[in-house]
Amino acid sequence: MESLTEVLTRLLDGRWAAVRRDVREHLAAQAARGALDTAGLDVAAHRERVARQLQALAETGGPRLGFPREYGGHGDIGAAVVSFEMLGFGDLSLMVKAGVQWGLFGGAVHLLGTRYHHERYLPDIMSGALLGCFAMTEVGHGSDVQHLRTTATYEKDTAEFVVHTPDEAASKTYIGNAARDGRVAVVFAQLVTGGESRGVHALLVPIRDEHGAVLPGVTVEDSGVKAGLNGVDNGRLTFDHVRVPRTALLNRYGDVAEDGTYTSRIDSDGKRFFTMLGTLVRGRISIAGSAASATKRALTIAVHYGDRRRQFQNPAGAEIPVLDYLTHQRRLLPALATTYALHFAQEDLVGELHDLQGGGVPEDVAEVDDVRQRELESLAAGMKALATWHATRAIQAAREACGGAAYMAENVLPSLKADTDVFTTFEGDNTVLLQLVAKGLLTNYRLQFEDLSPLATARFVAEQFVGAVIERTAARRVVERLVDASPARDDDAAVFDRAWQCKLFTDRESHVLDGLARRLRAATRDNAFEVFNSAGDHVLRAARAHVERLVLDSFVAAIDRCEDDRARELLNKVCDLHVLSTIEADRAWFLEHGRLTSGRAKAVVAGVNRLCGELRPHARTLVDAFAVPEPLWRVPMLDWT
Amino acid sequence: MESLTEVLTRLLDGRWAAVRRDVREHLAAQAARGALDTAGLDVAAHRERVARQLQALAETGGPRLGFPREYGGHGDIGAAVVSFEMLGFGDLSLMVKAGVQWGLFGGAVHLLGTRYHHERYLPDIMSGALLGCFAMTEVGHGSDVQHLRTTATYEKDTAEFVVHTPDEAASKTYIGNAARDGRVAVVFAQLVTGGESRGVHALLVPIRDEHGAVLPGVTVEDSGVKAGLNGVDNGRLTFDHVRVPRTALLNRYGDVAEDGTYTSRIDSDGKRFFTMLGTLVRGRISIAGSAASATKRALTIAVHYGDRRRQFQNPAGAEIPVLDYLTHQRRLLPALATTYALHFAQEDLVGELHDLQGGGVPEDVAEVDDVRQRELESLAAGMKALATWHATRAIQAAREACGGAAYMAENVLPSLKADTDVFTTFEGDNTVLLQLVAKGLLTNYRLQFEDLSPLATARFVAEQFVGAVIERTAARRVVERLVDASPARDDDAAVFDRAWQCKLFTDRESHVLDGLARRLRAATRDNAFEVFNSAGDHVLRAARAHVERLVLDSFVAAIDRCEDDRARELLNKVCDLHVLSTIEADRAWFLEHGRLTSGRAKAVVAGVNRLCGELRPHARTLVDAFAVPEPLWRVPMLDWT
Repeated sequence: MESLTEVLTRLLDGRWAAVRRDVREHLAAQAARGALDTAGLDVAAHRERVARQLQALAETGGPRLGFPREYGGHGDIGAAVVSFEMLGFGDLSLMVKAGVQWGLFGGAVHLLGTRYHHERYLPDIMSGALLGCFAMTEVGHGSDVQHLRTTATYEKDTAEFVVHTPDEAASKTYIGNAARDGRVAVVFAQLVTGGESRGVHALLVPIRDEHGAVLPGVTVEDSGVKAGLNGVDNGRLTFDHVRVPRTALLNRYGDVAEDGTYTSRIDSDGKRFFTMLGTLVRGRISIAGSAASATKRALTIAVHYGDRRRQFQNPAGAEIPVLDYLTHQRRLLPALATTYALHFAQEDLVGELHDLQGGGVPEDVAEVDDVRQRELESLAAGMKALATWHATRAIQAAREACGGAAYMAENVLPSLKADTDVFTTFEGDNTVLLQLVAKGLLTNYRLQFEDLSPLATARFVAEQFVGAVIERTAARRVVERLVDASPARDDDAAVFDRAWQCKLFTDRESHVLDGLARRLRAATRDNAFEVFNSAGDHVLRAARAHVERLVLDSFVAAIDRCEDDRARELLNKVCDLHVLSTIEADRAWFLEHGRLTSGRAKAVVAGVNRLCGELRPHARTLVDAFAVPEPLWRVPMLDWT
Repeated sequence: MESLTEVLTRLLDGRWAAVRRDVREHLAAQAARGALDTAGLDVAAHRERVARQLQALAETGGPRLGFPREYGGHGDIGAAVVSFEMLGFGDLSLMVKAGVQWGLFGGAVHLLGTRYHHERYLPDIMSGALLGCFAMTEVGHGSDVQHLRTTATYEKDTAEFVVHTPDEAASKTYIGNAARDGRVAVVFAQLVTGGESRGVHALLVPIRDEHGAVLPGVTVEDSGVKAGLNGVDNGRLTFDHVRVPRTALLNRYGDVAEDGTYTSRIDSDGKRFFTMLGTLVRGRISIAGSAASATKRALTIAVHYGDRRRQFQNPAGAEIPVLDYLTHQRRLLPALATTYALHFAQEDLVGELHDLQGGGVPEDVAEVDDVRQRELESLAAGMKALATWHATRAIQAAREACGGAAYMAENVLPSLKADTDVFTTFEGDNTVLLQLVAKGLLTNYRLQFEDLSPLATARFVAEQFVGAVIERTAARRVVERLVDASPARDDDAAVFDRAWQCKLFTDRESHVLDGLARRLRAATRDNAFEVFNSAGDHVLRAARAHVERLVLDSFVAAIDRCEDDRARELLNKVCDLHVLSTIEADRAWFLEHGRLTSGRAKAVVAGVNRLCGELRPHARTLVDAFAVPEPLWRVPMLDWT
C-alpha cells in the first residue's frame, strides 16, 4: 500500500509526474557526486561549474521538451515548464542559466522567429552547442520596456540592420550568458525603416565568435559579483553600429522587405510588442514554479530541523522539539500550507498554458484566443508576484527558524535566500506585475495592452468597466458546485466551512475591484495620473485578492480530485490553514468592510493556532511529500541535533 | 544659518555627537581609500582586510571608550555603545569583529572579572594586542544557555580547573575570532567544585599561543563560508580536559577558594547566571544600534535612487521619478519614519544604560537597582528584536525598490542584506527575546529570571500579576503632559492627534498584557506548558505592544526637545507616519477590540497615503540627516540614472 507521503506526492506530481521524476533523478545523481555544492566557490569557479552542469543537462534531453518536434523537440510545453520548475530544487544558478538559454533565448527564437530561424538555430540551441542571451532590459528601462532606446535601423542599400546603443542608458544590462558564454543575443530594439519607427522588435545579433572572442562593435562588461546566482555570467552589452543581415529580424509578428517596406498583421506598435511579449509568458510561469521549488526545499530543511532541534525543558525535564512551540509552528506551518496552495494553482496555470500553446503558437495571429491569452498572461503575472514574494518570506522564515545554523553556507538556506531574492524583480517587478493584473481585470482583458501607463488605464476604465467578472475555469466550477451545495452559515465554526471561505474570497475580489473602478471613474484627462497613483495600494489589493481567489479555487479543485481519504482529510486541514492564515493577514479589510465581526475575526486567529497544533504531527509528511531529493535537503545541521 | 538637514542631524546625533563625528570621519577616510570595499573578496582576503581594519580602529582609541579609566579607558559606556552603533555604517564584519573583541570578550573580562583580570588583560585587550573570543553558544544550546554542557571542574590538588567538552553537542559553535585570530576565549561552562555543580560561570581559556598555533587539548574547526559577515572568522571550539589555573575564573559573581570552597553573594545559581548575563546587556543594545545604522544606509541609498530613477511617462510625456509613485513611497517612507522612531528610542536606551552603568558595575551586588536593571535588560531585548526585524524588512524593501541594480554587489544593498540577516538570531533569538520582555512585564520585573522556562513563568504569573504598570520614564512624563493637555476627540481627524495616538498605544499595551495574565492564570502544575505555549502569539504581541509604546514615547519626547520650528513640523509628520503605519499594520487588533471603528481604521490607511505624499518632497532631507558618509552611500547605480 502506498504511504500517505506517497499518495500526496502522486497528487502533487500531477500531470507531468514523469518529468518531475526524471529531473529529481538527474539532480540527485549530480548532488550525490557533489556537483551541486557551490558554497565557497568564487565567481569564476561557480560559473565554470554551472556551465558544465548546463551541458550535462542538455545531454539529458530535458531542454528539448518545449521545442517543436520537426527540429528534434517534443512539442510539450507543459513538460518544459515543469522541468524548469523542478530545477528549482537544485543550484538556482543552473535553473536561471538554463532558463536564459532554453526559455528566454531559445524561446524567443522559437516563438518570435520563423522557419528560417528555426532550421538554422534550434538544433544547436537545444543541444547547447549555441549559447545565447536575451537582451531586453536596459540601464534606463527595466519595467517600461516599451520605451527601450537601442535602435535597429534598416539600410536598404546593404539590406542590413544597424544595431546601435545611443548612450549608456540604452546599454543592455544584467544580461545572463553575456559575460562569458553567450555567442548570440536576441536584442530588443526600436525598429526603424524608411525613417519611421515601428516599435520594439527582436533581432539575432552575434556577440562572440566560435572561439569566444567578442566581435567588433560589441562591448561586454561583466556585471561582477551579485547577491546570489553567481554561477550565471551576467553582463552589460553595448552595440556600436553593429550590422546584421535582414534575416536577423525575428519576423513572426513584423517583417521588413528588402526594399525596406514594413509589414505586420498587427497594426498598433504597442499591441504588436505586447503580443510578442505575451508569447514569452512561460518565462514568468517558470519563475513562479522554481520559486515554489526553492520554497519547498527551504521548508523541508526547516521542518526537519524544527522536528529534531530541542530547546528548553518541559515540566518533566525533557527538552522540547522547537516545532512543538506554537510560535515556531506559526513561522513555518502557514507558509507550508500556502506552498501547497500555490503548488496546485501553478499546476493549473501550467495546464492552461499547455492547452493554449501546446501545439505551438499559431502562425496566424487571428487564431489566438485573445481574451484567454490575456487571462493567461495576467494569471502568470499574478502568480509570479505571489509565488516569488511568498518564496522571499518563507525562506526568510525558514532561515530564522533554524537560528545561527542556517547562517552557515553548508546548510543551504543562505544560498536559497540570496539566489531567490531577485525573483521578485526579474521577469517583471512584482509591483508592476500586479498593476498589470489589475488592469486586465478592470478591462475584462479587452484592452490591448498597448500602453502600460496609468493614464491609459484610468481613461479606459472610466469608459469601459462594467463590473467584476469571475471567469469560469474548471476549478471555479468545482467551487461553485461546493458553494451551491452548502447552506449559508452564521456561527463562528463557519470559519472551517469551505463554502463560507470561498464566498468570502470571491466577495472580497468583487468588492475591491468594483470599488477601484468607482475611484478610477473620477479620472479626467487632467488628473488621470493623480487618480491612478493615489489608488496605488487599492490597485495592488485588487490584483492580490483576485489571484488569491484563483489560488484557493485550484486548491479546492485539487482536493476534490483526491481519492484517498487520509490524504483528503489532511489536505483539507492544510487548505483550512492556508485560508485562515490568509484571512488573518488581511482581516483588517474584512472587519472594515463588515465581512467579519470581531468575534468571527478572533475565531479566525484561534483557528490558525488550532490548525498549527493539529498539523504539527504531520509536518514531516507534508514536506516529505514534496519529494525533494534527500541529498538536496539533508544538510549538516540535521545531524548535529 | 543651519540647513534643515543640519538641524535634524544635530538632533539625531544627540548626547554623543562627538563620538558619532569621530567614527564618521574614520569610516569616510577608510572608505575613500577603498579599504571598505569587500565585494568579491574571498573569505581569506576578507578576514585579512577586516583584521587590519580592526587594528586601524584600535589606533583611533575608540575601543577604549567603555573601559575603566584606571587602565587607560574613558569610562564612558554610552560613548562606547554609540561608537559601535556608528560602525554599522561601514563593513558590518568590522562592526561584529570589534563587537566580539571589545564588547563581548573585553566586556566579559571587565564586567565578570576582577582587579586581577583587569590589570593583567585590559590594556592588551584595548590596544588589540590580545584578541579573544566569547564562547557561550553550544551546538546543542543556543537560546537555552542556562543548560550549557561544557564543564569546568575544579581540582583541589593542582588548584586548576579542567575545562572539558563532554560531547559534540557541547562544542562551542559560531564563535567569532575563533577560526583565525583569537588567542584567549571566555568560556562559559558549568562550574563543578567539590563534586557539586554551581551553574554556569565564565573562565579565561587560552586557545592559541603567541604565534597563532592552537594549544594542546583545544580543537578549532572553521565555520567556513557564511551567508554574510565573512570578514569575521567564526569557528567551533572543543576542549579536551584543558587545564587552566584557579585565577582563570572570572570571579566577580562567584569564586572558588584554593581548597575548592565555592562562595557567591548570590545564592541561586539561576539568579547568579542571569545577573552575569545582565551585565552584558550592552551587546544587545549595540546590535540594535548597528542594525539601525545599516537600515539608515540602505534607506539613504534607496531614497536617492528612487529620487533619480525614472520609469513610465506622465501625461505630459516626461518620465516620472519612481519615488513619485505611491506604491514606491509605501515601500520606503513608512520604514524611514520608523527608523527615526527607533533612533530616538535607541538614544534613550543608551542614555539609560549609561546612567545606570556609567560608573562601571558596582562590586557590591546589593548596590545595583534591581528593578531598573531588569527594565533596562527587558527594553534592550525588546529593542534588539524590533530594530533587527525592522532592519531585515526595511533593507529587503530597499533592495526590491532598487530593482535589479540592487542585486549587484557593487551597489552595497546585497551585503547589507546578507550581513544583517543574522542580527535577528545572534545576541538572542528575537522570538525568545520578546518572550523575555513579556515575562518581565508580567512579573513587573520582580521575578529573578532564575528560570526561562514557560512553566516557571506561567506559575509565577498565576500567583503574582497585579496589572499592567506603565513605568514613568522621562519620555513618558512628556507624553503624559501632552495627553493631559489635550481634549478627548472623536472625529476621524483624530488620527493625526498625538494625544489620541499615544492613548491608543498605551491602551493597547495594558489591554493585551492584562488579557495575557488572565489566560496564564488558568495554568496549573499539570497544564502550565500547554497554557503558556498556546498563548505564544499573545506573549509576542504583549511584548511588541509594550516596546512600540516606549518607542513612541521616545519619539514624542525628542520632538518636544526640538527647538527649530521647521524641524519640529517635519518630525511631527514623520512621527504621524510612523504611528499611523504602525496602527495600520495592527489595525485588525484595534478593530477587533473596539478601539477603532471601521471609519477610523480607513482614516488611518488614508492618513498613511496622505503622509507618504506630504513627506515625498522631504525624503532626501530625511535620509541625508542621518549623515551617512557619502563614500558609503554613493553607489554606482546612482550615477547610471
